[in-house]
Amino acid sequence: MATCEIISVGTELLLGDILNTDAQFLSTELAKMGIGVVYQTTVGDNPERLKKALSIAAERSDIIITSGGLGPTPDDLTKEICCEFFDKKCFLHEESLDKMKQYFANKNIEMPESNVKQAMLPEGCTVFPNNNGTAPGCAMEKDGKHILVLPGPPRELTAMYYESAVPYLSQFSEKTIVSHQIRTFGIGESALAEKVKKYLDGENPTVAPYAKDGEALLRVTAMADDEESAEELMKPIIEKIFAEIGEFVYGIDMPNIETAVVNSLKQKGMVVATAESCTGGLVSQRITSVAGSSEVFQCGIVSYANNIKHQILGVNEDDLKNYGAVSEQVASQMAQGVLRLSGADVAVSVTGIAGPGSDGTNKPVGLSYIGLAAKDGTLFVKKLLTGHSGKNCREYNRYVNASNALNLVRLYLDGKI
Amino acid sequence: MATCEIISVGTELLLGDILNTDAQFLSTELAKMGIGVVYQTTVGDNPERLKKALSIAAERSDIIITSGGLGPTPDDLTKEICCEFFDKKCFLHEESLDKMKQYFANKNIEMPESNVKQAMLPEGCTVFPNNNGTAPGCAMEKDGKHILVLPGPPRELTAMYYESAVPYLSQFSEKTIVSHQIRTFGIGESALAEKVKKYLDGENPTVAPYAKDGEALLRVTAMADDEESAEELMKPIIEKIFAEIGEFVYGIDMPNIETAVVNSLKQKGMVVATAESCTGGLVSQRITSVAGSSEVFQCGIVSYANNIKHQILGVNEDDLKNYGAVSEQVASQMAQGVLRLSGADVAVSVTGIAGPGSDGTNKPVGLSYIGLAAKDGTLFVKKLLTGHSGKNCREYNRYVNASNALNLVRLYLDGKI
Repeated sequence: MATCEIISVGTELLLGDILNTDAQFLSTELAKMGIGVVYQTTVGDNPERLKKALSIAAERSDIIITSGGLGPTPDDLTKEICCEFFDKKCFLHEESLDKMKQYFANKNIEMPESNVKQAMLPEGCTVFPNNNGTAPGCAMEKDGKHILVLPGPPRELTAMYYESAVPYLSQFSEKTIVSHQIRTFGIGESALAEKVKKYLDGENPTVAPYAKDGEALLRVTAMADDEESAEELMKPIIEKIFAEIGEFVYGIDMPNIETAVVNSLKQKGMVVATAESCTGGLVSQRITSVAGSSEVFQCGIVSYANNIKHQILGVNEDDLKNYGAVSEQVASQMAQGVLRLSGADVAVSVTGIAGPGSDGTNKPVGLSYIGLAAKDGTLFVKKLLTGHSGKNCREYNRYVNASNALNLVRLYLDGKI
Repeated sequence: MATCEIISVGTELLLGDILNTDAQFLSTELAKMGIGVVYQTTVGDNPERLKKALSIAAERSDIIITSGGLGPTPDDLTKEICCEFFDKKCFLHEESLDKMKQYFANKNIEMPESNVKQAMLPEGCTVFPNNNGTAPGCAMEKDGKHILVLPGPPRELTAMYYESAVPYLSQFSEKTIVSHQIRTFGIGESALAEKVKKYLDGENPTVAPYAKDGEALLRVTAMADDEESAEELMKPIIEKIFAEIGEFVYGIDMPNIETAVVNSLKQKGMVVATAESCTGGLVSQRITSVAGSSEVFQCGIVSYANNIKHQILGVNEDDLKNYGAVSEQVASQMAQGVLRLSGADVAVSVTGIAGPGSDGTNKPVGLSYIGLAAKDGTLFVKKLLTGHSGKNCREYNRYVNASNALNLVRLYLDGKI
């Protein structure tokens, strides 16, 4: 398998001014082609350091892909340094120069002198035209090593990658890598890893556990000559994994649990309603983030204050006083209330203490009750303790509460409640 | 100036599965302390490659900060490899072990055996407790080189960085770098840059424009011997900038516009209510993400379907039929409806077409109407066209619609509507 190092050039990256989405994009795409990214390096607009980084990269990878530093300003030097490193002379590429002049002409501007250097390209290179900006990129080769030079702005890089880099790189693409993500809910990363321990040592396919947003997932990856063969390789191990942990799985390659829930509701022709307190609208927001959710969602109530819980959802005032808003009784009545109000098939409620402040009672931050009520008479409340009460707990608790609410709907639709 | 290399550990990064926000966060924070990040490296869960990366980093930087690979699974090896590299023995840190057991106990779970290794720490290290997860981090020193080992999940890393890494790193901090972010709404990045063009070339302080989530902001940064001197340096330029663009500014170092709105409501002792369609709960979710928002928010209605707009908010059925849900009339009635229902002082509504699909009429994706109604009789509707209708427009349109709704409340509270 051909190996690759990605070098992102730009002092703004080292200052944390911008997020390095280029490296992620390139990594994803290279994996699809079966090219193994072994290192990513970020270096500033510093000729010496870039030269050293290229030197190190050339020792440890077959292919180097750089992004950034192709601009017209004095500190844009990536191409020049790469040419120096590969000992290539540069010449003025007339076609690129004309293209750049036209780019400026289209905006009724005269091309500044400083842009001319962007049309200087190494002898013998493969030119990568830029259809979304000024600077062309290129690919050069020496002694079996390859350097691809791409622009930094994500929109320009993405387009140039697909248009020019992919054809150039196809010579290295012997194998295909295919991955599937097994998404789970209700089991932690270490417990999950324990259950599938015997599969974690595989070479091909590989199985790797990850934690993400309060959920654990398994990434199964296989490398083969083509996509079908890679899928065939993975099939048995995915089946075995399902036999171990199927009860926790909400989908394969599902972006999130709300997508699984909306799909399930659509399949069953059912509608869900939401009644939220501490999550403040996050449950309904997640449901409606899924395109086509208007088929399965019509009504959400954010009853953030107790009087609203009573007034709109019909929650009993004495129960609010005696048990408090964060209680099984109130969660149950909130769900029943919005079910009645909306005419939905199933309703879910969330009431809890997101923190960091408590609610004036002895109840712990991170406690919540998730209620479910359905037209068929099902009534269920789940008590949840996230254990998170530190300074930054609010966002985490709200997100995990909302995920649990969505999971409860999923379990109901799957006939498990 | 002390130099630093950030090493992000994780095969998922090399596969492009996740975005490397840790490197950006660390870079921003280190810059504030006057520590120069000279390289960022990403390496997979591969002991040999990590060891080589540490070796290279130790040659070219004073400080190494690693993130990731502190989990309980077999491929989490960062701490072990760092210890090996620095030739330190590890011992079981009882305090960390107890803390971890308590973390699981708070969730009514028994700590899995595989987590125990997370409490193994190098002799002589400075322990960095983890108050947001299980794995503690640490800092170790050898022959004048320092390695800080931090967890990968952003929430855990951020907290541990502020709580433990900053005190540890202050020994390297000769100069102080202070930054302020001038947050604006209602003006684009290039228009903003044009207005403050004369300040963009400064050496110290520097002024840099950024675009973020449909807003433009200016980052003013000064470096001096101490914080007070840095603030003194920035004061005149911030005043000049305000003179140019003050009308668009909603705050300095305000994390987002919802925080500005909640603060303003608190100051005035007022309460806001929300009525949402296409944003699906995002406005109320953003309001309630601000701690203490229960003082200023009680009730949100997500009337995703037309019958719910009529049934709960009293929107006129004929108007829904004649003008459609996405109209000035419906936006106005939604706001008035939730104002009445909730007894709030001011109410805001959003109705629009987030996309990618349209709403069955000729109205364009990206169109929305934002309504505002207040107890003092104020009634206002803003028409908004985001111009985003491509494949990924839904999230963007919803976010920008919600931001505009929040901004309308802000303008009302500022007496500008």
